[in-house]
Amino acid sequence: MASVDVGVALLGYGTVGSAVHRLLVESGDEIERATGHRLRIVRALVRDPEKQRGYAAGDGVLTTDFAALRDDPDVTVVAEVMGGLEPAGGYVRELLRAGKPVVSANKQLVAREGADLFATASRAGVQLRFEASVCAAIPVVKVLRESLVVSSVHRVLGIVNGTTNFVLSRMEAGGTYAEALAEAQELGYAEADPTDDVNGADAAAKMAILATVAFGSRVALDDVDRHGIEEIEQAHVAAAAELGMVVRLVGIATLAGGAVDVRVQPAFVDRSHTLAAVDGAFNAVMLNGDAIREITLEGPGAGGVETASAVVADLVSVVGTAGTGFLQNDACWRELPRLDPGAWRSPFYLHLEVADRPGVLAHVTSRLAAHGISVAQLVQHLRDGQATLDVVVHETAYGEAAAVAAEMASFPEVLRRPFLAPVITERSL
Amino acid sequence: MASVDVGVALLGYGTVGSAVHRLLVESGDEIERATGHRLRIVRALVRDPEKQRGYAAGDGVLTTDFAALRDDPDVTVVAEVMGGLEPAGGYVRELLRAGKPVVSANKQLVAREGADLFATASRAGVQLRFEASVCAAIPVVKVLRESLVVSSVHRVLGIVNGTTNFVLSRMEAGGTYAEALAEAQELGYAEADPTDDVNGADAAAKMAILATVAFGSRVALDDVDRHGIEEIEQAHVAAAAELGMVVRLVGIATLAGGAVDVRVQPAFVDRSHTLAAVDGAFNAVMLNGDAIREITLEGPGAGGVETASAVVADLVSVVGTAGTGFLQNDACWRELPRLDPGAWRSPFYLHLEVADRPGVLAHVTSRLAAHGISVAQLVQHLRDGQATLDVVVHETAYGEAAAVAAEMASFPEVLRRPFLAPVITERSL
Repeated sequence: MASVDVGVALLGYGTVGSAVHRLLVESGDEIERATGHRLRIVRALVRDPEKQRGYAAGDGVLTTDFAALRDDPDVTVVAEVMGGLEPAGGYVRELLRAGKPVVSANKQLVAREGADLFATASRAGVQLRFEASVCAAIPVVKVLRESLVVSSVHRVLGIVNGTTNFVLSRMEAGGTYAEALAEAQELGYAEADPTDDVNGADAAAKMAILATVAFGSRVALDDVDRHGIEEIEQAHVAAAAELGMVVRLVGIATLAGGAVDVRVQPAFVDRSHTLAAVDGAFNAVMLNGDAIREITLEGPGAGGVETASAVVADLVSVVGTAGTGFLQNDACWRELPRLDPGAWRSPFYLHLEVADRPGVLAHVTSRLAAHGISVAQLVQHLRDGQATLDVVVHETAYGEAAAVAAEMASFPEVLRRPFLAPVITERSL
Repeated sequence: MASVDVGVALLGYGTVGSAVHRLLVESGDEIERATGHRLRIVRALVRDPEKQRGYAAGDGVLTTDFAALRDDPDVTVVAEVMGGLEPAGGYVRELLRAGKPVVSANKQLVAREGADLFATASRAGVQLRFEASVCAAIPVVKVLRESLVVSSVHRVLGIVNGTTNFVLSRMEAGGTYAEALAEAQELGYAEADPTDDVNGADAAAKMAILATVAFGSRVALDDVDRHGIEEIEQAHVAAAAELGMVVRLVGIATLAGGAVDVRVQPAFVDRSHTLAAVDGAFNAVMLNGDAIREITLEGPGAGGVETASAVVADLVSVVGTAGTGFLQNDACWRELPRLDPGAWRSPFYLHLEVADRPGVLAHVTSRLAAHGISVAQLVQHLRDGQATLDVVVHETAYGEAAAVAAEMASFPEVLRRPFLAPVITERSL
């Protein structure tokens, strides 16, 4: 097949955009072998064409004029690597309407405005791909949409935020949350303002996208039940270690009984579980489905070149499937109800700080029994006249676990609000 | 896009074939949403049409006549799920020449006759896909060819044989190799004749395919340097534990200085390494490349439904890219030389059983020093007047490590042939 040039435009030409350009140039032969086409950057929308760039754009490529880019007949496909909701969202819509396929690396845009964007793409009959919007170079969207098309995925477990994973891993060596976060910032694993990482917002956006693709039903950002790691203390990490577990910020998307539950929260992960081995700033996504049992993908969840690699893979896929109709449908094809959050089932960990007096243990265990909750592991410690109780309970409804924790908070002998977290284990509990 | 039926033929209708049929029927809607087409089994080649099947074929589908299948104009794409080199290989060639794209689940066929098969497909201008031929449902071929097209993969590390992984994992709880193998057979993780698993032949075929795809250069089965697990003793497993490692049968494909090295052998894997966490009968493949740093895929490496899921994913990809020219090239586009096996570099573990007399340790360490090999860890044990020496050395050429081990074998105080294995660690050694 003779090589035909394919004109690519970029919205944005920062770290990711210039890395996309470099990869297209340096790997032009590989791409041509795979697709029969040579992809060339013909336009790149920027605010300031005079700014110094990581990898220089060609002459006349940089432009400040969106309409010129949109209307350029040489532009066959567009990669949106500018970030932010506006003007990125408006630009993507206009491009799709103009019949240009778009590849987006924009997590917030896809998570917040996916329904509208995919409807626009579908009406225009062009592809909107978004591999780079979740977990950078890890090809989880492609795997879900293409490799697992028949495997009815019913659970997605993810460690999808490197900052929190690094902080929680560091706390295992001792030290407070504040110390670990400061170290992450020093090493560049956390931003100066780490709010969206530590409060779980970043992970929630990724889990909303992953759950949407995995279950074929739109999960909005507000549908994600989200808790951050700000309240994790050294005592929790130490208690986890004693129970043979580690604390991790885990995204859990479940399809059960035809309803969807998506949550991001600190969880106690069994040390022998695959997710416990995910290193520092890496991400991992574990997919459970009927035909595949369990497939896990792990890799760097962030980084300019890593993100650019996913953008290029999407560009290659768009070119490689042009005109076939393949994956031009919205990933969503059904509307599933949200599971009552209280009905979501898991084993749980409960941390209690109690006064050291007779009858406390009996009181706690009798309340658990009254809620029909069965104890799997229990460790009691005494320090400075105060006792801590670390309890792991067998699988139960979240509503029951939360209710018993709330009840215990009002016991006179319970000194602080109990801490409750799901337990992730391969053993059935 | 209006749905058009796509006729699929199967070569073979055993466990995998009937599972492919079931998945196509049960997931017909999902496939139609993704591709715009409904895939239907129209022919299936079998030896005995009267035999009872796991999932019944439709009326008139089963046939014993290959020519009728090949010449059927309703057959658009064919899945080869019969196994064996012949007649499967001849059939696949004929089908490709007849212009029918083929999807194969046949590891031995792809590993042994890949060069000829891909050349035939390329001449005919049709696709030959082979995801199911390695690691069942783990989509490593698709990820390598499509997602990592620009990332210049330079290393593939794999645990690609579930039987040996199960046996070595079991030996950690104590017990001999023979006991662990017998347990694997009882539980169905090992065949009655486990030869091809335990001697590394199965893993070598998979690594040959993976290295071929990853490096774009043909790796024949004979190019793989292969050692099995038959000589692994409880003492090696115990020594690994003491050093914070586990013993695993690891496939290692390396592209270094423009030359390729592919080997399968027992290795000492650091307990904190991702591959050490791979459970029992699961497989994992770790890919290192420039743009992606490191991506790991883990999942079930065998099983009828798991393999069928990969076959269906390939069928969907063939239909989804029909007429675009995408991936119709051979995965190989260059001929890379084989690295001199002695030049392959790694940290190594060396196990010595020596007489307990003065000067032994000095003799051993002085010979290592003479070869320019630097010691990272050393543990000496004494039992029944006999000493074992477990030595981990920093990265060195395999030729040097093998030479020093051979030299030591001739020391009068060394009682048995030394055992040498590469060490897999994330820390640089």
